[in-house]
Amino acid sequence: MVGAGQLARMTCQASIGLGIGFRVLAASAADSAALICADAVTGDYTDLADLLAFARGCDVVTFDHEQVPGGLLAELEKAAAARSGPAVRPGRAALRYTQDKLAMRERLRALGVPCPRYAPVTGLDGVQECAARWGWPVVLKAVTGGYDGRGVWVCGTPAEAEAVLAHPVAVFAEEHVAFGAELAALVARSPHGQAAAYPVVQTVQRGGVCHEVLAPAPGLPPGLAAEAQRMALALAAELDVTGLLAVELFLADGGLLVNELAMRPHNSGHWTIEGARTSQFEQHLRAVLDLPLGDPRITAPHVVMANIFGAGTASPDIFSRYVHVMAADPGVKVHMYGKQARPGRKIGHVTVLGSDVAGLRDRAARAAAYLSTGNEEGE
Amino acid sequence: MVGAGQLARMTCQASIGLGIGFRVLAASAADSAALICADAVTGDYTDLADLLAFARGCDVVTFDHEQVPGGLLAELEKAAAARSGPAVRPGRAALRYTQDKLAMRERLRALGVPCPRYAPVTGLDGVQECAARWGWPVVLKAVTGGYDGRGVWVCGTPAEAEAVLAHPVAVFAEEHVAFGAELAALVARSPHGQAAAYPVVQTVQRGGVCHEVLAPAPGLPPGLAAEAQRMALALAAELDVTGLLAVELFLADGGLLVNELAMRPHNSGHWTIEGARTSQFEQHLRAVLDLPLGDPRITAPHVVMANIFGAGTASPDIFSRYVHVMAADPGVKVHMYGKQARPGRKIGHVTVLGSDVAGLRDRAARAAAYLSTGNEEGE
Repeated sequence: MVGAGQLARMTCQASIGLGIGFRVLAASAADSAALICADAVTGDYTDLADLLAFARGCDVVTFDHEQVPGGLLAELEKAAAARSGPAVRPGRAALRYTQDKLAMRERLRALGVPCPRYAPVTGLDGVQECAARWGWPVVLKAVTGGYDGRGVWVCGTPAEAEAVLAHPVAVFAEEHVAFGAELAALVARSPHGQAAAYPVVQTVQRGGVCHEVLAPAPGLPPGLAAEAQRMALALAAELDVTGLLAVELFLADGGLLVNELAMRPHNSGHWTIEGARTSQFEQHLRAVLDLPLGDPRITAPHVVMANIFGAGTASPDIFSRYVHVMAADPGVKVHMYGKQARPGRKIGHVTVLGSDVAGLRDRAARAAAYLSTGNEEGE
Repeated sequence: MVGAGQLARMTCQASIGLGIGFRVLAASAADSAALICADAVTGDYTDLADLLAFARGCDVVTFDHEQVPGGLLAELEKAAAARSGPAVRPGRAALRYTQDKLAMRERLRALGVPCPRYAPVTGLDGVQECAARWGWPVVLKAVTGGYDGRGVWVCGTPAEAEAVLAHPVAVFAEEHVAFGAELAALVARSPHGQAAAYPVVQTVQRGGVCHEVLAPAPGLPPGLAAEAQRMALALAAELDVTGLLAVELFLADGGLLVNELAMRPHNSGHWTIEGARTSQFEQHLRAVLDLPLGDPRITAPHVVMANIFGAGTASPDIFSRYVHVMAADPGVKVHMYGKQARPGRKIGHVTVLGSDVAGLRDRAARAAAYLSTGNEEGE
């Protein structure tokens, strides 16, 4: 797996049960997955020689992020086609739609998949034309990457749009959807074409960052859940995804709109470690290895996952926080990623399972807040 | 963790979620846990220098087996007492009762815990005296260790007893219990004295080797299950166990008799990975780290675990077996240990969860047999 963040860490953990060899390409030995993986290689995923050396001896290469440049993916696929390198899953043709958001929108439009309205823009005039049609705010999205760690900006005024446009980053404009909820549909697809769909979840975001995931999405009409699953399964097939595909959706005016795609284990699927018969991490491995997929069914009536964010000190005494959290709630499942606790950084998550969504949310939020801050108020 | 077999492997896997550093002392880099642990040290657990070097920098030392010599445990505890080494959990005083089975029997008798009748013997005369009182067969047990990988011999005749006595291994005699079922009661206890008990399970043995575990033990009267748990909790406290204590029991004539003790994760608890809210491996870590214990409750009405044994070739093509097993049963959970498949060796296990014990046993047995042999008949 190229990349050694928490997704690779949890995939490595799943690989142990399957008894398969698992190697990660890490930027540093301190990366989340490099800390726990017996076969961690350090190198640069933007360097072809590093990638090829890393891939040597592997049967399949997969990814913890979507940032490997397309040209390098093409080289890896060339080696695979010549049988001098491992299979690349997902492949370049699929990953392109996570790397170029404008290409993704165009492809989805061509497929008839409902999306927010969007338009390529090159300057403020274009943004203002969009605003005239859709109203403010207008969302600007980087076609690729972004700056300051962000790639999406909700602009309420022309001045705010101008500030984004001042950066040397290609963007396009999208209507701001007044959504009722954000959902995620997670599916897996193998090279054989076998597919499996997880229950559709609700994601609760603050400031554009996922804080909570509720599985299954509470109150979602079964027809809409099935539609979201069908949409994700169809997209996985149309885009020839191998491995996981996470489709982030807006539920707006009673309909579904596709927001984003990810082709890897996804934060919206962390609940599956305890909450589904097959975790998304095991499922991703089974899919990219072209093994039959596992049962994706939920193991409890409701599952709630809450992210733990860094706060205050970079190296808090997590042990003393465990004493409190584990004594207060013996049923909470804690996952820490071994990361420095920079403010706002995802450093772990907690999962709780049961019947009462409100109670589960309260338990998950309390545990996550305490592990984040070391105090009851979570501040 | 001293020792790098499958118990250390699965404990390492649990350590990843908790985000704690985990080091194993392996005899070889090919050991089950050494293959997947990012901090595997090779060394000899019967060598004090190796043990001390291994333990340096750890907060707690614990064990994947009970074979570290008592004298070395005493040295480790001396270092801990002088604050120049990590805590040793479980400690020497507790481990003694897993290392010396005669001392265990004597201690249990002193505590009033029901056990099979037993007697020290030094020769055939002693065995024949026991047989005169209890009848044949007579069970001979090595006080410590054994030979040919065994420590228990069921002797049906004086000649069979003589063959055992011919080895230079101290043994004692025990009555052969005509039991209705074999049970196991697994509990955890922390240095604080907090304890947690898992549901009592039935173990199904063939030729003295555990093949299947049924959780909870089907048809066990609730009063007897509670008595087994109480017995295990009392023993953990009396023997000052820290970490897990597995108590193997005979159910005979409607009563319970203690057969064996183990102070570590135990084969009878592998079902807890998916089948309990807190796996035995996480629980052992929480206990030896003196963290509050996790919820030990079962997550489904019934859970069945079946061991996978080596058969035929040492390095079978497990991947092709996965294709069959995973396609036939998407709900079966597979755990492979990365071990060479020597005939009769435990190389993995499978777990299934559901409501119908007979159906679960059938599914687990089929999957385990196929992974063992690569054919439907399991031969």
